Amino acid sequence: MLYSNIEIHDGRLFFAGVDAAGLAKKHGTPLYLFDEQKIRENCRKYTDALKACACPNSAAVYASKACCFAGIYKIIAEEGLCADLVSSGEIYTAKKAGFPMERAYFQGNNKTDEDISFAIDCGVGYFVCDNFEELEALDEIAGKRGIRQKILLRVTPGIDPHTYDEVATGKVDSKFGIAIETGQAIEAVKLALSKKNLELEGVHCHVGSMVFDSDVFFRASDVMLGFIKEIKNICGFEAKTLDLGGGYGVKYYEGQGEIDISANIKAVAEHIAEKSAELEIKTPSLRLEPGRSIVADAGITLYTVGSVKKITGYKNYVSVDGGMTDNPRYALYGSKYTVLTANKADKEASLSADLVGRCCESGDIIQPDVKFPADIQRGDTVAVLTTGAYNYSMASNYNRVARPPIVIIDGGKDRVAVKRESLDDLIKNDVI
Amino acid sequence: MLYSNIEIHDGRLFFAGVDAAGLAKKHGTPLYLFDEQKIRENCRKYTDALKACACPNSAAVYASKACCFAGIYKIIAEEGLCADLVSSGEIYTAKKAGFPMERAYFQGNNKTDEDISFAIDCGVGYFVCDNFEELEALDEIAGKRGIRQKILLRVTPGIDPHTYDEVATGKVDSKFGIAIETGQAIEAVKLALSKKNLELEGVHCHVGSMVFDSDVFFRASDVMLGFIKEIKNICGFEAKTLDLGGGYGVKYYEGQGEIDISANIKAVAEHIAEKSAELEIKTPSLRLEPGRSIVADAGITLYTVGSVKKITGYKNYVSVDGGMTDNPRYALYGSKYTVLTANKADKEASLSADLVGRCCESGDIIQPDVKFPADIQRGDTVAVLTTGAYNYSMASNYNRVARPPIVIIDGGKDRVAVKRESLDDLIKNDVI
Repeated sequence: MLYSNIEIHDGRLFFAGVDAAGLAKKHGTPLYLFDEQKIRENCRKYTDALKACACPNSAAVYASKACCFAGIYKIIAEEGLCADLVSSGEIYTAKKAGFPMERAYFQGNNKTDEDISFAIDCGVGYFVCDNFEELEALDEIAGKRGIRQKILLRVTPGIDPHTYDEVATGKVDSKFGIAIETGQAIEAVKLALSKKNLELEGVHCHVGSMVFDSDVFFRASDVMLGFIKEIKNICGFEAKTLDLGGGYGVKYYEGQGEIDISANIKAVAEHIAEKSAELEIKTPSLRLEPGRSIVADAGITLYTVGSVKKITGYKNYVSVDGGMTDNPRYALYGSKYTVLTANKADKEASLSADLVGRCCESGDIIQPDVKFPADIQRGDTVAVLTTGAYNYSMASNYNRVARPPIVIIDGGKDRVAVKRESLDDLIKNDVI
Repeated sequence: MLYSNIEIHDGRLFFAGVDAAGLAKKHGTPLYLFDEQKIRENCRKYTDALKACACPNSAAVYASKACCFAGIYKIIAEEGLCADLVSSGEIYTAKKAGFPMERAYFQGNNKTDEDISFAIDCGVGYFVCDNFEELEALDEIAGKRGIRQKILLRVTPGIDPHTYDEVATGKVDSKFGIAIETGQAIEAVKLALSKKNLELEGVHCHVGSMVFDSDVFFRASDVMLGFIKEIKNICGFEAKTLDLGGGYGVKYYEGQGEIDISANIKAVAEHIAEKSAELEIKTPSLRLEPGRSIVADAGITLYTVGSVKKITGYKNYVSVDGGMTDNPRYALYGSKYTVLTANKADKEASLSADLVGRCCESGDIIQPDVKFPADIQRGDTVAVLTTGAYNYSMASNYNRVARPPIVIIDGGKDRVAVKRESLDDLIKNDVI
């Protein structure tokens, strides 16, 4: 099986030790399932490696955008992670869940004045400042509240991360951060240091998510440490923190590469420590921002089959009761997934078919060219694996389809962490 | 200007006669604005042409997926349109808005037993049945309720609509409908006619939206009328209704083609009447299903600029406070839009920049290569035109960004039709 938490007994798929089709019956479909112990295990890969690494006081920052709901913050708080939050909505969710806000990093390329005020009022630990306008606005608003706000400065190191275009965020040409190469980043540092209500802690970059090779982190840290050295030379300021953004990749299908996260973090930190010594700067503490690799393989989605269409001489389609509304990743990026038939998991998968959703849209494909058992039929339960990241968080109500609930499994027990949307939820803001 | 409801006075953009930036200040941004009279005008293009056309008792069916909220159903009900609904959520919204449900068509390739029961209980006029499993389930559920449910049968005529791949739904190889070419569609007709709780009214196909040339409707109607003739010959049943699905295209930018909807409907209906006479079948009543062409150009979206990033030697970025969360169409399809700076609408647009959103995702682009005034800055109001279709309906809470409100303008007055999501709305279903 793709992961250790997926097993087959008596023809049925077990996820985190529980019969998946049974949970589909109990909670209805579509249904997001999460394996709490897998989330914790993924957290510990980062926290253990970062605690032991060559950069002092290092920490992992959970990238909330991968999957944001109150329950996740309780788990990552207990596991000692920090939280990367990108909107007032994410801040509010974390705060309501009791997340220690001094461990929160407020990110994003466009923070409104309202967002800034709200974040300060919620006691967010760090702002990752993205642009000149934000530095000005934050200094002014922090000043009005009589506080000195700790910040990191997001810069672009000019690294092409060799990942998907959509997650390529460290190039000079990016909507995020301020370019080192053009000399604009050092100007931003000078501005930050000149502001009496801002306390610069360090620098941040993001060279793309789904990293399968630490080479991109080596190259990024070389550029970033060079920049820290430049700041020291020009401004006499030594950055305490280096945030390299992103996290490592996740295996979505058999045959895809895997990566040893612990070993890679160790190597990256050693590289940073050596390079720092060489440059005669203090070794900064390291931050990584895993999101996908914390939650992706801790989640699966269950659907019920509504129709099996065999178009003689053409193609086959298996339609289910969800789709791009709960998982838009194939529609957006052509993402690959592994699909199993939960209640017929031991049958030979001999029927090739596209797994499609219920939306009135041809692009509503969850995964093309899937293999199903020949007798798959209305009422069967289909499981899509590795849906813990960027599924619930990107879900929509397109076609006014209600969003599925999130059920967390821990120790063989299931509990609802997010309730299914009701019909009344869908029209809640409609003025009738 | 692109449309008659867009004007510039004293450097400011007026939409439906009202100062757009003023509404942005009043209601906040992001903000969806709709022009009620434009919606009505678009409705009448269809209803007037269909009433007068050569096919008796013809009607337009509003494709709700383009934009579904309670307020829209009041307008289309008054304008005499029917409604195409594709989920329990759309059915519930229409019913709550007081839409006459006998004019509702329940569509979709995957109706669950719960959906079918709910639709019958709501008194939906017609089911557009998509597959064999649905015919069986509907017959059984209708029987239990002691009713005879009127249906159309969705078939695929095998027409390549020459539109975008994602909206190409009439090909033989499609997740929608049952193929005529393979002989499966006539088998479905036989099954439908054999069911005592189903009353077959006619046949339905969908050859793609964004139609700019009636040729595709001519070809589809040829195939469909041939099929109606085949049904008559084989089953002795004469279809009363021919639903050709879809609607005509909409102009999103200068230089794009336009289409005379009235003249085209007239020509399509005449073609159907002539062809019917030739085939010696009764001229069926015609249904078209416009969605985009009812609402797209009746809507605009307003945003506030947060940052203007000029990366020396590379590119420029204008970041706003919305993005792929309220308009995922560029991310999904690379869709083109026309963009204006609402409070600086008469200034020379000399700054080339990508208009990007606030999400932590590189693909969060609303529109690349836009021209802005050279002095655009934080606080300015940007208007994206033609956002009435597939924006609000496809919106998500990605990054936990709240969805914008819908404000309708009529007779110079603005009224809130959908309220802005609150922070509490975002965590409403979270179990804390």
